[in-house]
Amino acid sequence: MEKENLSVVLHSQGDLRLEQRPIPEPGPNEVLLQMHSVGICGSDVHFWQNGRIGDYVVKKPMVLGHEASGRVVKVGSAVKNLKEGDRVAVEPGVPREIDEFFKSGKYNLSPTIFFCATPPDDGNLCRFYKHSANFCYKLPDNVTYEEGALIEPLSVAIHACRRAGVTLGSSVLICGAGSIVGTATVLFFVFPVSDLSADRLVMAKELGAEFPLTVKREDGPEELAKRVEGLLGAQPHITIECTGVESSVQTAIYATRPGGVVVLVGLGAAMTTVPLLNAALREVDIRGVFRYCNTWPIAIAMLASKKVNVAPLVTHRFPLEQAVQAFETTRQGQGVKIMLKCDKTDQNP
Amino acid sequence: MEKENLSVVLHSQGDLRLEQRPIPEPGPNEVLLQMHSVGICGSDVHFWQNGRIGDYVVKKPMVLGHEASGRVVKVGSAVKNLKEGDRVAVEPGVPREIDEFFKSGKYNLSPTIFFCATPPDDGNLCRFYKHSANFCYKLPDNVTYEEGALIEPLSVAIHACRRAGVTLGSSVLICGAGSIVGTATVLFFVFPVSDLSADRLVMAKELGAEFPLTVKREDGPEELAKRVEGLLGAQPHITIECTGVESSVQTAIYATRPGGVVVLVGLGAAMTTVPLLNAALREVDIRGVFRYCNTWPIAIAMLASKKVNVAPLVTHRFPLEQAVQAFETTRQGQGVKIMLKCDKTDQNP
Amino acid sequence: MEKENLSVVLHSQGDLRLEQRPIPEPGPNEVLLQMHSVGICGSDVHFWQNGRIGDYVVKKPMVLGHEASGRVVKVGSAVKNLKEGDRVAVEPGVPREIDEFFKSGKYNLSPTIFFCATPPDDGNLCRFYKHSANFCYKLPDNVTYEEGALIEPLSVAIHACRRAGVTLGSSVLICGAGSIVGTATVLFFVFPVSDLSADRLVMAKELGAEFPLTVKREDGPEELAKRVEGLLGAQPHITIECTGVESSVQTAIYATRPGGVVVLVGLGAAMTTVPLLNAALREVDIRGVFRYCNTWPIAIAMLASKKVNVAPLVTHRFPLEQAVQAFETTRQGQGVKIMLKCDKTDQNP
Amino acid sequence: MEKENLSVVLHSQGDLRLEQRPIPEPGPNEVLLQMHSVGICGSDVHFWQNGRIGDYVVKKPMVLGHEASGRVVKVGSAVKNLKEGDRVAVEPGVPREIDEFFKSGKYNLSPTIFFCATPPDDGNLCRFYKHSANFCYKLPDNVTYEEGALIEPLSVAIHACRRAGVTLGSSVLICGAGSIVGTATVLFFVFPVSDLSADRLVMAKELGAEFPLTVKREDGPEELAKRVEGLLGAQPHITIECTGVESSVQTAIYATRPGGVVVLVGLGAAMTTVPLLNAALREVDIRGVFRYCNTWPIAIAMLASKKVNVAPLVTHRFPLEQAVQAFETTRQGQGVKIMLKCDKTDQNP
Repeated sequence: MEKENLSVVLHSQGDLRLEQRPIPEPGPNEVLLQMHSVGICGSDVHFWQNGRIGDYVVKKPMVLGHEASGRVVKVGSAVKNLKEGDRVAVEPGVPREIDEFFKSGKYNLSPTIFFCATPPDDGNLCRFYKHSANFCYKLPDNVTYEEGALIEPLSVAIHACRRAGVTLGSSVLICGAGSIVGTATVLFFVFPVSDLSADRLVMAKELGAEFPLTVKREDGPEELAKRVEGLLGAQPHITIECTGVESSVQTAIYATRPGGVVVLVGLGAAMTTVPLLNAALREVDIRGVFRYCNTWPIAIAMLASKKVNVAPLVTHRFPLEQAVQAFETTRQGQGVKIMLKCDKTDQNP
Repeated sequence: MEKENLSVVLHSQGDLRLEQRPIPEPGPNEVLLQMHSVGICGSDVHFWQNGRIGDYVVKKPMVLGHEASGRVVKVGSAVKNLKEGDRVAVEPGVPREIDEFFKSGKYNLSPTIFFCATPPDDGNLCRFYKHSANFCYKLPDNVTYEEGALIEPLSVAIHACRRAGVTLGSSVLICGAGSIVGTATVLFFVFPVSDLSADRLVMAKELGAEFPLTVKREDGPEELAKRVEGLLGAQPHITIECTGVESSVQTAIYATRPGGVVVLVGLGAAMTTVPLLNAALREVDIRGVFRYCNTWPIAIAMLASKKVNVAPLVTHRFPLEQAVQAFETTRQGQGVKIMLKCDKTDQNP
Repeated sequence: MEKENLSVVLHSQGDLRLEQRPIPEPGPNEVLLQMHSVGICGSDVHFWQNGRIGDYVVKKPMVLGHEASGRVVKVGSAVKNLKEGDRVAVEPGVPREIDEFFKSGKYNLSPTIFFCATPPDDGNLCRFYKHSANFCYKLPDNVTYEEGALIEPLSVAIHACRRAGVTLGSSVLICGAGSIVGTATVLFFVFPVSDLSADRLVMAKELGAEFPLTVKREDGPEELAKRVEGLLGAQPHITIECTGVESSVQTAIYATRPGGVVVLVGLGAAMTTVPLLNAALREVDIRGVFRYCNTWPIAIAMLASKKVNVAPLVTHRFPLEQAVQAFETTRQGQGVKIMLKCDKTDQNP
Repeated sequence: MEKENLSVVLHSQGDLRLEQRPIPEPGPNEVLLQMHSVGICGSDVHFWQNGRIGDYVVKKPMVLGHEASGRVVKVGSAVKNLKEGDRVAVEPGVPREIDEFFKSGKYNLSPTIFFCATPPDDGNLCRFYKHSANFCYKLPDNVTYEEGALIEPLSVAIHACRRAGVTLGSSVLICGAGSIVGTATVLFFVFPVSDLSADRLVMAKELGAEFPLTVKREDGPEELAKRVEGLLGAQPHITIECTGVESSVQTAIYATRPGGVVVLVGLGAAMTTVPLLNAALREVDIRGVFRYCNTWPIAIAMLASKKVNVAPLVTHRFPLEQAVQAFETTRQGQGVKIMLKCDKTDQNP
């Protein structure tokens, strides 16, 4: 096995470095992975540019990256579900304690959870990385490494849809066509997409959104809600809000049908002013999502069935050595999903 | 049958009159009721004092009252479920159309629903009143008329608990110990009650709340949330917010356990500033309640079983002729539930 | 308007006649329909051949047909949602009473429900038919009459899927690839289909089933369950049993993953011997379906979106005048769905 | 610490011995417990008498007992939630793998789970026993050791009620008033109890059942179902079947209201003949329960609140040294719950 372990390390706000780190040794329940494809997430860029997201502050050097797939190169002594050579997708959150949240199937809410590239936990934008074998999922032959890495953003969409109760015939409005949204749009029947970026709208439309709705800055929330109803012929059962912008959250509430659900995927300010009375009197539920849980097996089944196609979301690829350039490209808002290729011997999708 | 039909009519803001109205004739699917006991609700007083609640404006004279029970004195030609002499509780909301909301079991959300004493629909604070037979429920012999009238506020509590998913062993925090709350408190195991009114607190405690928490105006929402956690030993799974006050809604969000639910029963201002990010990242759901549906049979079963005792909530009684005095007493915040006795021949509970 | 109302009437077991009936007059909440396309269901044939299904016995002449669409030619005085000329799909079940089942959104379970072509209620295999306007649903321009008629069998699939909790990434096994099954198979990702009829298997495969599984009569339920697991790589979360055959119900239970669901769509004998202990100890739920409720709006949204294509299911068409021949063709098991064309002026799909 | 570890060991069918075993050493995530109170369960007696339950066969000596509480006398190096001296209740099932069932909150269904006194796993009817600290729950001061031991049968009732969806105002029929049932009966409003043992009926009535129904052997299932409806005034929403007897399962199905739920708690034969068609056509769901999950915290909250009183269920107590006599007493069907006292220095409840 190689000795070098080139890693993308954020030392502090604005200080992103490529540096060698030791290759870790997997514990009894862990596997060592040769990383293959790792996507850059908006949160990686946010930590780089701001040194923090909310209460999560970068206080010591941290490896970035949490949308990842790789190949098992070493297995811990107690591992039963994986063997050397297995191609796997990595679920970045691993509960540290068997607490009430874990026991009841909501391990994403466990306050002590390990999570890749959330301070102080290291991510997997590097050559070699060890992870709990229980949170690595074997990829079928017909699912690529890049699709495996895209399971992470797809998981946000799956979890949001589950939290929303999306089911047969649900009409869904998505506010904000980012890459998570883009991934989601392939899944469902009817949803107008509202976003300010024309390029992303095109992508959203290609991936399945039926009634793209271009939003102008001067549109008021109640007017927009009426336009959505006009486009769809009825208020949507479900609105998935992906921008975190206050006016968009307000639109989401006004636009949703009585008895429906607004799911908050986008993160906004600590305090938000919303028409809570309108939501309450029409029994429109407001539900947040925090990451995801129990989504990897579902996502793998969806990708393996070829009913969902996320491959077009990858618009740029860089070798790991050019990580800084890749981050800069992401920061500039170019493309949809930018993928870093961590395995020198295999730079294929 | 008598000819007079003394009725409590709100002509406009502040203009409450006792006047004679014609005795109505029931349609084929209706019954005529000799009203017996009708409670005064905060909303009746609010219409009287303000002439409106939100978009509901008193534009023409309207009979008040919607917490009611009475005796069937005439049945429509197509009525099968009731007969003359039956003692019934009245569900004040009757859907006018068989729309998607009615068909899917959420008839409370039907936008064209009839609702007693919500403008322009007349209520039942009078001697004789006709109502859809399908929304009158026969009372068992061991349930009094007053208990029957109290099913309306009890229904708010039942619907709120169902919307909250209250189940075995749920820990519940109730913010604001009003009479709806008072009714609820008999139902569940653990809930600190926070309210500014000492009298009501005592009532709440008597009825089953375990850890009354007195709130001072200067307490901040996050501090209060910590005090609640301290009192209970853990954050509550569910918070039922009954005040509608912005700071209390904020407290409700901060206080609730990750994965839990905040139910909004109290009505506040049109726009509310809340820590939506905190709620979203901890997957604390925010759910409103609009009145109720499918609660009368449940409430009757609960009352008949004698496991729930709402009788102590009635602190004052007035004959219908003294309705204005009864409203004044309610306006002054005296007592918990004030009951009007509409049947001259039977003023018993 | 025409005077003749040619109708397909079952007088008693085996005695199927084409005869003229009066054109009905719609009541205030009803519409009169010029019927367009009516599919023949297995239950129509069963009544014809046996004179009964379970406790439902043909005691007096009854018009057959309940998979129907038509055009509004007259509207009752109180009808608001429809107007003359509207193209509509007909939901055949109309609750007669506002009972607890109707109020709670399960009107299909109302014991007094009217249902087309279930004795003694007349169906709509005729030229002119009146129906509750609330249970006629306007078809969008891009949905054909025949698709409208196929909403009825599609509704069985939708209701079964909802009862099963089919959601993103569910793996579904369908036992028995009949036309309801055929309709369902277009909807979901992974489901081996087991049936004894090769022709139907082909259809099932075309419509989306991924792992057709041919069943031989000598295969035991536990062996078959193992074969399903082998084919899918894991036990399915959900099994939809469409045959009603005892051994297939047994297979369904053994095959389903712990914590999963078996939905019974097929109707079998009054008493069935099943491995209830196996189901109980693995918490495999057993749920029946009785017709459907609240499915027409969903089905129309699905058909309008063109994500579901049921048109290929129609393999034969007959003018209403040749109804007996159409029934004979159905009885012989030819084709998948046989459609009767009831409008002499328009025999298009 | 003492050296002796007197244990109740089942060597093979009928061969029950009291013998000394080594005191175990807790692993890093385990605690060593001085056992205090351990109840005898019907399954312990069944293993003793038959050497097996279904596929679980006693092939080598096994310590019995799984309804247990004790005191922490040693903590593993990684344990954070407990300390020496803590009084705890023991959840006997501990998942060995973090599989899909554990991750999704249904760890009871994990096929590799450890479970006390299910072959080949040892139970805790002994002086000293080690257990996963994550599955030991600290008892509040106002909950006794015996109440702690009774959490196990109470958990069956809680899990059954959760699986049944028991909620406010549910009417519940319980078939078979055993000790699990007895525990359950304190929890809910209305449930006739049917059992053949007069003594247990009395207990059930004392604990809260309202309409005890004595069943004679010659009553047919459909007749019994009608008697239940007559007693309650309506069919129950939920039936909890605790006998496993075929005719009682049949009664449970016939008796339950359309749209309701039958929960199977009692274990019967491998194959059962039931009116599946009746259940399916009325959408009466059939759900099994396999042990429980996530019930200890709920049970402790219920016991601490003093709203549930299980203490009267303990009718006999024996010191551990007299275990064989205690088993014999249980086998003879005397009393309700028989408790073994394992701590020589404290034989209090």
